[in-house]
Amino acid sequence: MRQVAVIGIGQTRVEENWDLSLKELAGEAVIHAMNDAGVSGFDSIFIGNMMSGSANHQQHLGPLIADWVGMRFSEAYRTEAACSSGASAFRTALMAVASNEVDVAVAVGVEKMTDSPGSEITAELATAADREWEGDHGVSFVALNALIMQRYMFEYGWEHHHFAQFSINAHANAESNPNARFRKAITQQVFEKSTMIADPINVMDSSPMGDGAAAVVLVPLDKIHQNNNKKFVKIIASAVATDTISIHNRLDPLWLKAAESAAMKAYDQAAILPQEIDLFELHDAFTIMAALSLEANGFAERGQGPRLALDGDIKLTGRIPISTMGGLKARGHPVGATGMYQIVEVVQQLRGDSGGCQVKDAHIGMTQNIGGSGSNIISHIFSI
Amino acid sequence: MRQVAVIGIGQTRVEENWDLSLKELAGEAVIHAMNDAGVSGFDSIFIGNMMSGSANHQQHLGPLIADWVGMRFSEAYRTEAACSSGASAFRTALMAVASNEVDVAVAVGVEKMTDSPGSEITAELATAADREWEGDHGVSFVALNALIMQRYMFEYGWEHHHFAQFSINAHANAESNPNARFRKAITQQVFEKSTMIADPINVMDSSPMGDGAAAVVLVPLDKIHQNNNKKFVKIIASAVATDTISIHNRLDPLWLKAAESAAMKAYDQAAILPQEIDLFELHDAFTIMAALSLEANGFAERGQGPRLALDGDIKLTGRIPISTMGGLKARGHPVGATGMYQIVEVVQQLRGDSGGCQVKDAHIGMTQNIGGSGSNIISHIFSI
Repeated sequence: MRQVAVIGIGQTRVEENWDLSLKELAGEAVIHAMNDAGVSGFDSIFIGNMMSGSANHQQHLGPLIADWVGMRFSEAYRTEAACSSGASAFRTALMAVASNEVDVAVAVGVEKMTDSPGSEITAELATAADREWEGDHGVSFVALNALIMQRYMFEYGWEHHHFAQFSINAHANAESNPNARFRKAITQQVFEKSTMIADPINVMDSSPMGDGAAAVVLVPLDKIHQNNNKKFVKIIASAVATDTISIHNRLDPLWLKAAESAAMKAYDQAAILPQEIDLFELHDAFTIMAALSLEANGFAERGQGPRLALDGDIKLTGRIPISTMGGLKARGHPVGATGMYQIVEVVQQLRGDSGGCQVKDAHIGMTQNIGGSGSNIISHIFSI
Repeated sequence: MRQVAVIGIGQTRVEENWDLSLKELAGEAVIHAMNDAGVSGFDSIFIGNMMSGSANHQQHLGPLIADWVGMRFSEAYRTEAACSSGASAFRTALMAVASNEVDVAVAVGVEKMTDSPGSEITAELATAADREWEGDHGVSFVALNALIMQRYMFEYGWEHHHFAQFSINAHANAESNPNARFRKAITQQVFEKSTMIADPINVMDSSPMGDGAAAVVLVPLDKIHQNNNKKFVKIIASAVATDTISIHNRLDPLWLKAAESAAMKAYDQAAILPQEIDLFELHDAFTIMAALSLEANGFAERGQGPRLALDGDIKLTGRIPISTMGGLKARGHPVGATGMYQIVEVVQQLRGDSGGCQVKDAHIGMTQNIGGSGSNIISHIFSI
């Protein structure tokens, strides 16, 4: 396999973006990424998106977006893996370049969720669960996570307020990220008093939906020198694993086995230990997912994820900084775009371009995008 | 790029399959393909599907289907390119193997359309058009093709009955295909008298929807010898191009420029001339698309596609056999599965396993899957 690098990034601010259509959002991120990379075109573009068919009555995003950014006739199609759709587009672009099929590929994640009523979006998000075993019973996605969190607290003796630091850290970091949806710090009290959604998950445990797009440009590593591009970041691992969608169908619903599997493969590919990761953009759709992801990736013992938050290990200056630009919680979670935001943010960090969010001396960064409640895991490791 | 081959195929009969769910349909095709290949597992599975989110209230097909066929923890995600979703899954699997990321990949196309009312499916199919420029005006997919066909007949002097042989040929071939939806020959009179849908397109110009799944197993060519697999078929070209979705936005709405582009790239990769193709599984969603595809691929002069049908050149014994197992018209068009049916059928032909549909001495076969009215083209060439 030929080595591949990211030479350009672009993103829009996550918000309720009523004045931009889905293709305009995606186009803005793609054009930013192309300008940043200094390329005027590409061979292929892969679109990560979950719900445009229902939320925007528009499928077939490939040619729509390729045409919109002036690249009619290029290769273009969509990839979908629920909330890990973004990283699936990135992985497809990586394989396209690594296979020698193409030389310049773009991956873009885009989602436009705020044009539809919240009830419709909640129903659409539930299509990421198993329809026959979960969806048909009316279980929403937050309810599924609440079941996991209830059991986790019971098994390991945690109380709800112990999860506050995941949210507090994310919001504190988002203050310095101009692309974050909520650029406002919160306190322990705000966390504890926020509105309950599905016990024990309250608003401050949960990531907000939003509209947004993030994109990168990928090229073969051995073609970079001749372009004299100084800002490239290498992809040193790309690993994927799935699990059964239904939580009740897992042997251990409190352990993200697919996340562990993808992480171990990724460490192996990169030939590094977890301790060498300088920052970790995990999938904090809910605080419980942040805890489980830290454990599955080898940063905490089983059942001890919240300890890292309580001890300050997840802060920018901590042992394993997470949600460094706000995470899903405060940057926002436009579902199909999230995996691409994670990657764009790690590239920003490794370049040293993260301003007030900057992790000092960041050389190796990891992303982990999760689809479903741990049923589709796409992990990447990057280095400068 | 390492060379890749197809070592196993599987398919279900296209029909109204009310007793099998979407995952069961996909699973049946995948298990058949794995058995045919003699493999007990795979690293990755890519799912081509257009409309499960709305038609089946189920997205996130990757882990759902991987788990169902006993391959929990493998890589799994969906690709979508409207009616070319099937071939996009195949291309993703090809790139996954070619890039050395994985050694055994499965591509499956699946669509389950008959659980929903026809009006819903018509609306869902229209999401493959440009929502803002076409869909919002209420134009259905058949209406868009009718506009093209009207203009084509006007420009080149054809009458509707001149298109009959595309449909007659497809139905004649389907008689010998046990997996075809309509295994019944039709006459010129049946074609001419069939119900009008959108003038000039009538029922016999149009491919029927249906439920179905088709799958293949891909491995690196250089690993086949050690497995002693005798039935492999080589992929000698994989080429893709898109065009603007809106027909009114094309310089020449009567020429499939993206199809021409993908075909020329494919011939170049395979280092062959169009005349060397022994059979061509094209995308006869409507008879007009068959004519335009033959022209764009270099088998007929501009405006002369129907001539090949009238002269019998498209028959099994003709110069360029098409729709050899019934095509979209008579095998059926479960949209996200169609691209995979085309590939499975070409592999059958090259192996000499097509029974009464067999093209004699078939050594090189081509597929062309079309999304939208010519806006997403995925072409492959195979050889033994």
